[in-house]
Amino acid sequence: MSSSILAGSARLAARQIARHAPLSRPQLSAAVSAVRIAAVSPSSSKFITHHTADSSIISSFRRAYATESGPSPSPKQSAPSSSKFKLFGLYLWRLTYGSAILGVAYVGYALYDSRHPYDQMPPDPSKKTLVVLGSGWGAVSLLKKLDTENYNVIVVSPRNFFLFTPLLPSCTTGTIENRSIMEPLRHILRHKKASVTFYEAECTSIDPVNRTLLLRDNSEIKGETYETSLPFDYLVIGVGAQNTTFGIPGVQENACFLKEIQDAQKIRTRIMDCIETATFKDQSPEERKRLLHFVVVGGGPTGIEFAGELQDFFEEDLRKWVPEIGSDFKVSLIEALPNVLPMFSKELISYTERSFQDQKIDIKSKTMVKKVTDKAIFAEATNADGTKSMIELPYGLLVWATGNAPRPVVRDLMSKIPEQAKSRRGLEVNDYMVVNGTEGIWAVGDCAATSYAPTAQVATQQGAYLARLLNSLAKTNALEEKVLELEDLVAATSSLDDKKAITVEIENKEKSLRRTKTIGPFQYTHQGALAYIGSDKAIADFAFADGRKVASSGELTFLFWRSAYVSMVFSTRNKMLVVFDWIKVKMFGRDVSRE
Amino acid sequence: MSSSILAGSARLAARQIARHAPLSRPQLSAAVSAVRIAAVSPSSSKFITHHTADSSIISSFRRAYATESGPSPSPKQSAPSSSKFKLFGLYLWRLTYGSAILGVAYVGYALYDSRHPYDQMPPDPSKKTLVVLGSGWGAVSLLKKLDTENYNVIVVSPRNFFLFTPLLPSCTTGTIENRSIMEPLRHILRHKKASVTFYEAECTSIDPVNRTLLLRDNSEIKGETYETSLPFDYLVIGVGAQNTTFGIPGVQENACFLKEIQDAQKIRTRIMDCIETATFKDQSPEERKRLLHFVVVGGGPTGIEFAGELQDFFEEDLRKWVPEIGSDFKVSLIEALPNVLPMFSKELISYTERSFQDQKIDIKSKTMVKKVTDKAIFAEATNADGTKSMIELPYGLLVWATGNAPRPVVRDLMSKIPEQAKSRRGLEVNDYMVVNGTEGIWAVGDCAATSYAPTAQVATQQGAYLARLLNSLAKTNALEEKVLELEDLVAATSSLDDKKAITVEIENKEKSLRRTKTIGPFQYTHQGALAYIGSDKAIADFAFADGRKVASSGELTFLFWRSAYVSMVFSTRNKMLVVFDWIKVKMFGRDVSRE
Repeated sequence: MSSSILAGSARLAARQIARHAPLSRPQLSAAVSAVRIAAVSPSSSKFITHHTADSSIISSFRRAYATESGPSPSPKQSAPSSSKFKLFGLYLWRLTYGSAILGVAYVGYALYDSRHPYDQMPPDPSKKTLVVLGSGWGAVSLLKKLDTENYNVIVVSPRNFFLFTPLLPSCTTGTIENRSIMEPLRHILRHKKASVTFYEAECTSIDPVNRTLLLRDNSEIKGETYETSLPFDYLVIGVGAQNTTFGIPGVQENACFLKEIQDAQKIRTRIMDCIETATFKDQSPEERKRLLHFVVVGGGPTGIEFAGELQDFFEEDLRKWVPEIGSDFKVSLIEALPNVLPMFSKELISYTERSFQDQKIDIKSKTMVKKVTDKAIFAEATNADGTKSMIELPYGLLVWATGNAPRPVVRDLMSKIPEQAKSRRGLEVNDYMVVNGTEGIWAVGDCAATSYAPTAQVATQQGAYLARLLNSLAKTNALEEKVLELEDLVAATSSLDDKKAITVEIENKEKSLRRTKTIGPFQYTHQGALAYIGSDKAIADFAFADGRKVASSGELTFLFWRSAYVSMVFSTRNKMLVVFDWIKVKMFGRDVSRE
Repeated sequence: MSSSILAGSARLAARQIARHAPLSRPQLSAAVSAVRIAAVSPSSSKFITHHTADSSIISSFRRAYATESGPSPSPKQSAPSSSKFKLFGLYLWRLTYGSAILGVAYVGYALYDSRHPYDQMPPDPSKKTLVVLGSGWGAVSLLKKLDTENYNVIVVSPRNFFLFTPLLPSCTTGTIENRSIMEPLRHILRHKKASVTFYEAECTSIDPVNRTLLLRDNSEIKGETYETSLPFDYLVIGVGAQNTTFGIPGVQENACFLKEIQDAQKIRTRIMDCIETATFKDQSPEERKRLLHFVVVGGGPTGIEFAGELQDFFEEDLRKWVPEIGSDFKVSLIEALPNVLPMFSKELISYTERSFQDQKIDIKSKTMVKKVTDKAIFAEATNADGTKSMIELPYGLLVWATGNAPRPVVRDLMSKIPEQAKSRRGLEVNDYMVVNGTEGIWAVGDCAATSYAPTAQVATQQGAYLARLLNSLAKTNALEEKVLELEDLVAATSSLDDKKAITVEIENKEKSLRRTKTIGPFQYTHQGALAYIGSDKAIADFAFADGRKVASSGELTFLFWRSAYVSMVFSTRNKMLVVFDWIKVKMFGRDVSRE
């Protein structure tokens, strides 16, 4: 597709977009391109995502802190005399008091507001139907910023909630409860100006030519209708990716993954199952050791955080409540590359490795898993001298935290589009996130094959970008239609004064139009990376706008990690739930029941 | 078995109990009977259980309230002059302040104490092995009161936590989170003086002759050893009962039960699944109505509470977040008897029926379920004129909250004991909870066939009674052994002074012995019944020691219901979790995510 077209063609297309649905392919192509006319402007995103944070979070955290406890005394105000001190103290006390009341009032209002949604504009089927597939970072970030009154918006996802994935490793040990990081999609959608239709279903097939989707209710309870088709004008695909086992035999059958909330629940149950089975009567010492050996494959942030959380669980809780497991508990981490956490700076990598050594977590780098059976992992380790040897690791629980592959629906779509023939990793998109070889179909997040890492940070920025693009598209279409209407009017009217007035209005509209059409291609702004590494320590790489990078690690970074994550959680409800979970674990410890 | 034996025989038996293990059958019989010598004394229980509460709870609740906020002004202290008022106000303020600090300090200490268990005496295999099967009300109430240093105690249960069943209906809608009513068994056992061994396993077979159990690890993760035998000297069976479907076809396959935490989780998931499936694209209006019809079978407290909670969920949350379900949501309750809640007084039954009518919950009494398919219930209804007619009820979710049957291990044991041939409902026991036809094997709770209702209240009192009995048995045995030792000493010694001193000591010991052996047969003290009936209303029947009965209903009774239940939860940790869940629902509403 060409990246710019003549304004006249765009106008015509826009007029037709407003009047006829569905569009013919060339018309739609023109309409989509209409938003790409203006010069490239750097995209700025306010959102911070998975394993990242920037100075805006720091300042917002400071603001939040100050609101509760008053600002710290500014050095300029330090008084020389004791009476001034007293006055200052009084002032500080009143400020603290006042801002505490304001803070509570604000939180109270936010909660009240979130629980009392306004009446919504009903869905308008005469408008273009925009279907959003998925409920992850990309889709939800889009839905948050989208002006839903411009479209007939339909969301389709097999799960009816958004999952705050960065805290998923914490759910495996009960540091965070599952529902604290699940945000009901209905809450998000119910607060939009115009109502949004939601179908809890899996999209099993996308027809890019006839512009229809096939939906299927894959849940346990099915109605008479459990498979149906859904036509669309515009489509945003944000279905994410699925785990891949790289074809290694035995992984699919024996490993746990860590992508969905059910995965975390399964791991949590299995950890306690291993412990209880290890302490079963007459269990042999070797079998006990095997059952208490927890292996993580993948040295990315998810694997590292899970290993850290698991070791914490042992040190802080299991050791106390199940003393008979003694020193047999062991966590190992296998990574094929020479280092863990390749996206972090070198000093943080070695800090993590040292910290894991202190915690007695065994890192096996340069080790490739070759085969997995129900009780052992067979891997090829590269020795210090470069030679290779096969090792056998008996294990009780294996967590597979590496590898992304396209979902079946994405693979199916790729097979239908000749332009996607060469792609392996996912849907290839152009600079505007349009799926190559299609019109009016965009892809965001892990299902799109881009040059960026498959992180929440990227997906969020892409979703927010697409919301701006779609909002702008709707505004442009409306303005252009208005201009065409006025031009018709000018031609029809005979009074000179009227003609003049209408012409002025046309000029105004065209001015607005020029201002609106300034959505350039998507640009990613990396804001850094964050990871928890166990025993109340975290690491952080901050990337600043001026190109500076700062690495930070330790207990203070852990506090920052927590405050950054809380500020990234969308709703006040879930923010409070997460904070309460942390307090709960501090007060009561983690639960050792096997649900 | 005879209910009393000669003291000499008891002494001899006790001596042998202390020296040899395992015992021969007649010796054991004597030892067990030794605790039954004394006269029957009325048993008093401090524990309040499922659907019950007594004045001690009320007063303890008042105490808790007073500790937090100061006592309410006593009428005697009302002052006539304003200065007295001021002084009183000041006094009150200080008292409030002081008791708030004390209250926080107490809770803090309780939490610290519960998280820092002392070192335990190691298990002593030379002592008699007492095996406790189960982790429900009966078993845990026994374990709480048992002096574990007297035995080599082993607990076997397929679940490693105690479940506070009275709040299970609240878990189905998320009013209470699952883990708030799960109390890790390890916490309870770790706080005993002598350590207790726990095996997470199912007991699949009991051999009352060779005195061994067969244990099997039925969980997902199994070790090399997953089946083993366990010898015992004494055995307490507290495995509860299982659901029965009365042989009605289709119930087992299509209904959800409400006994274990997994049942509550399954119902919670299915409720949201029904809602999402009902709002699926192109669902027909009849199918929608079917999917939104929730049916409960059984008009006992569990069924009533579940129906009330479900209607609350719709009124307070679903109606707001999923407005498209409109007025199709419906809850029905089927009961075969003419009335629901037969254990409550008549005024409370009709109050409940009126309240359900206001809430639009449909009660179908005198209706017997005959057949269940995956989408409909077929039942025989008795009409007002006494005629009978078959009705068909299409449903989305069916919860089966009626019927108890013995578990397979209990049925297996019954088949091995000739004295149990006639029993159908469970293990027949004598007045001391000893399983008829066995020695040193007791049964508590729902697995025992007694004249009492299968409630938590009964199980708890039986467990506590058995703890006293076993503590007394151990003390008696120790004293009798000491007496025999002293008598040997008296015979061997030549000094007259020594003989005199020892004789005095023997007399003292025998005095203690007479004081100790005063455990009469089990006596149940009914303390009332409680149930939540939806829309912030509860009903309560109080039974007082003097035979008076008081019925109470409404919103205030609901507050009492809550405070009674919180006071019944064992640990400070779980008490706080339950209270926080209630606050959470008040603040944020219930979660509409489908986990």
